[in-house]
Amino acid sequence: MTSEYLPPRGMRDIIGVEAELYEYLFSEFKRTAKSRGFSPIITPTVEYFKLFEAKSGEEIRNSMYVFEDKAGRVLALRPEVTASVVRVYLRTLRALPKPIRLYYIAQCFRYEEPQHARYREFWQGGLEVLGDPDVNADLSVAITASEFLDNIGVKHVYIVGNVSIYRSILRSYGVDESSQDHILHLIDKERIESAIEEVKLKGGVEAAEVVSKILSIESLDTIENYLYDLKKALGELYERTLQEHYRTRDFINALRELGYQVVFSSRLVRGLAYYTGLIFEYKTASGDLEVSIGGGGRYDGLSTVYNGPFEYSTGLALGLDRIALVLSNSFKPQRVECIGVIVLKDVPISVGYRILKLIPPSFKSFVYRTRSLSKGLEYTNKVDCDFTIIVGSSEYKQNKVLVKNMRTGVQVLVDMNSLPEFLFLQSKFSNLK
Amino acid sequence: MTSEYLPPRGMRDIIGVEAELYEYLFSEFKRTAKSRGFSPIITPTVEYFKLFEAKSGEEIRNSMYVFEDKAGRVLALRPEVTASVVRVYLRTLRALPKPIRLYYIAQCFRYEEPQHARYREFWQGGLEVLGDPDVNADLSVAITASEFLDNIGVKHVYIVGNVSIYRSILRSYGVDESSQDHILHLIDKERIESAIEEVKLKGGVEAAEVVSKILSIESLDTIENYLYDLKKALGELYERTLQEHYRTRDFINALRELGYQVVFSSRLVRGLAYYTGLIFEYKTASGDLEVSIGGGGRYDGLSTVYNGPFEYSTGLALGLDRIALVLSNSFKPQRVECIGVIVLKDVPISVGYRILKLIPPSFKSFVYRTRSLSKGLEYTNKVDCDFTIIVGSSEYKQNKVLVKNMRTGVQVLVDMNSLPEFLFLQSKFSNLK
Repeated sequence: MTSEYLPPRGMRDIIGVEAELYEYLFSEFKRTAKSRGFSPIITPTVEYFKLFEAKSGEEIRNSMYVFEDKAGRVLALRPEVTASVVRVYLRTLRALPKPIRLYYIAQCFRYEEPQHARYREFWQGGLEVLGDPDVNADLSVAITASEFLDNIGVKHVYIVGNVSIYRSILRSYGVDESSQDHILHLIDKERIESAIEEVKLKGGVEAAEVVSKILSIESLDTIENYLYDLKKALGELYERTLQEHYRTRDFINALRELGYQVVFSSRLVRGLAYYTGLIFEYKTASGDLEVSIGGGGRYDGLSTVYNGPFEYSTGLALGLDRIALVLSNSFKPQRVECIGVIVLKDVPISVGYRILKLIPPSFKSFVYRTRSLSKGLEYTNKVDCDFTIIVGSSEYKQNKVLVKNMRTGVQVLVDMNSLPEFLFLQSKFSNLK
Repeated sequence: MTSEYLPPRGMRDIIGVEAELYEYLFSEFKRTAKSRGFSPIITPTVEYFKLFEAKSGEEIRNSMYVFEDKAGRVLALRPEVTASVVRVYLRTLRALPKPIRLYYIAQCFRYEEPQHARYREFWQGGLEVLGDPDVNADLSVAITASEFLDNIGVKHVYIVGNVSIYRSILRSYGVDESSQDHILHLIDKERIESAIEEVKLKGGVEAAEVVSKILSIESLDTIENYLYDLKKALGELYERTLQEHYRTRDFINALRELGYQVVFSSRLVRGLAYYTGLIFEYKTASGDLEVSIGGGGRYDGLSTVYNGPFEYSTGLALGLDRIALVLSNSFKPQRVECIGVIVLKDVPISVGYRILKLIPPSFKSFVYRTRSLSKGLEYTNKVDCDFTIIVGSSEYKQNKVLVKNMRTGVQVLVDMNSLPEFLFLQSKFSNLK
């Protein structure tokens, strides 16, 4: 019978302390983003499927919730938000001074086999910078995300790579863009042999050798030296690829100078097909397990996929469900002092709500109405109130209330007019203990 | 070409000041709900269609986004959240001390013809109380919503009704529940003649006369007197109907005692089929137009529709899009003082981010990197910064920065170490002006 009460497979009900943790993450993320000059954007949960069709990457494309509305429009539950942000940029934001900084908190959807901490509906906190070619834009999103993670106490390391060298090589050897996307997808899935096979098929043996070689390189300096060797092969793409390499280097150096731990990985390729250059991931240690808690990168020119003019762009998204999981054992919701107001049944109920308005805003408070004082006290005790205010008919007639300190059990009769001051002092006193 | 950049028909992109207004509404709603003892709940955006099939009401049922997932499960984008809350209650919350107070902020979906301020995706802020038969539960949600509306400056009046008298009468005359739902739906749509016809058809001429009569009554006292006349016709339902009537009376009296404006309407019937008794709506005046900005009511026993045990329940939802529209002309986002840090290209970019960490948290701040100081100042001026901090190579070498007050144009060379104190004082000084 209980199966009837379940949410759809792979989705969740978030309640109790976990819901408070999510709200804490949402508000901390927003606060940090705002303090670094990012502005909010709220895009539709549902978009036209075609928005995601081109560049979300084949894994995501195959795991989207796609459906038709009653007029036959093909819609999709968003698998991610960047495509929407670029759409809104093209529609309404182009005239703003650049760079444009945007943040969002949004639930996204992927139809995958549910696994531990992978849900079909999941929450992302994202940062995007549009209109800035400089590495500063990449640093701006990365460091803001790091500040958020630092604020909430999530230790993290950066894994940094750059897909431009693959894209440049493949393009030089005549591999078209959608084949590039597929090859990068295979590398992302760690199907290296299949990836190399595909390069061989589409770009020839030499291209396959180059890609193979790059995949085996572990240091940034070695990449740089190898890039010099590739000058001829890359031709007109050489300069741009070198600049992208410098971006990776500058990005990593700046993060290290600021005290962050950074690992370079030539094999890092993220699941989204719109990345064009620098990419990075955040990892955290959860128990013995390294967990990816988000990432991002450059998606310069994604605007052209939607027939817009070319625009520089970079961004990231953090997986808030993963982060919530990392914090789930340590998170303690901030305790707010609580006052229950018990109104006995022979007193007008509006009196209870008048009293609520007298309670200092630092407390949380509610009205409980009952014929039975002991039932009322049982409730205020169960929900962990610090004080219970009791109004029976005799108190009501005297314009007084009985205030019970639930920790000490002491009860005091207080004049209604001096209630705010009394509670303020009680609260100070109880905090000092 | 621009049509390519549009969101799905009837949905919206929320940006700029409007996005800040939404975030303000979200956070004020949460703050108020928490301060009155409500706890957050986050339910899936997508539910099994069958959750809404039974009791969402025919208008909503016909305007849901329904689709199958890849395994053939029939899903729906939630048209409202109460059904999900009851599902979660039955699944996991039953053992909590009652009443249980929950709040949510959630986007919901209805496939209707788009109209002014009616969107296919819309935002609701909701409050629910489970496990309390007393009118105090109804007051608790209503007054908390009023406090939220008062806090954000939205004047509102209550329209209050009660569907139990219709349901009792119809049931007494043998009209089954789904016909009751349909008749109430017709009344809600102001198709009074069709409603009466339907009552005649299903319950007979006498039932139609009674319903007709009740629809014509304008005062609560007249309803009460008429109820006494109906004692025989109502039979065993009489006592419960009378109690529901007293609930309406007590609800209205308490609200009036607290200074709220309340209008009783026997014709008020809301679109959701799960209401069983007291119902109410919030109206606000926007220009010449009275606008409904939300409402709620008793849905005792909705739990049994999902084969759970009977539970008392009441709640409401506010339409945040409507409220945003009401506030759209008057809302001014809280201005946060802004500092732009311009790092010239011969200075390590990490220096800019070191400086950000020195800036007091009351400011918003960002790093702008450029070869051209004038381009940098043009940007910090455009985005309305109060101060610009400039680091060129000569300042960098001296461990100093140049601080420019963007209002006065005055520039001061400041030692990096005394920057926090300097900014703190500057900010105090500029606030005093």
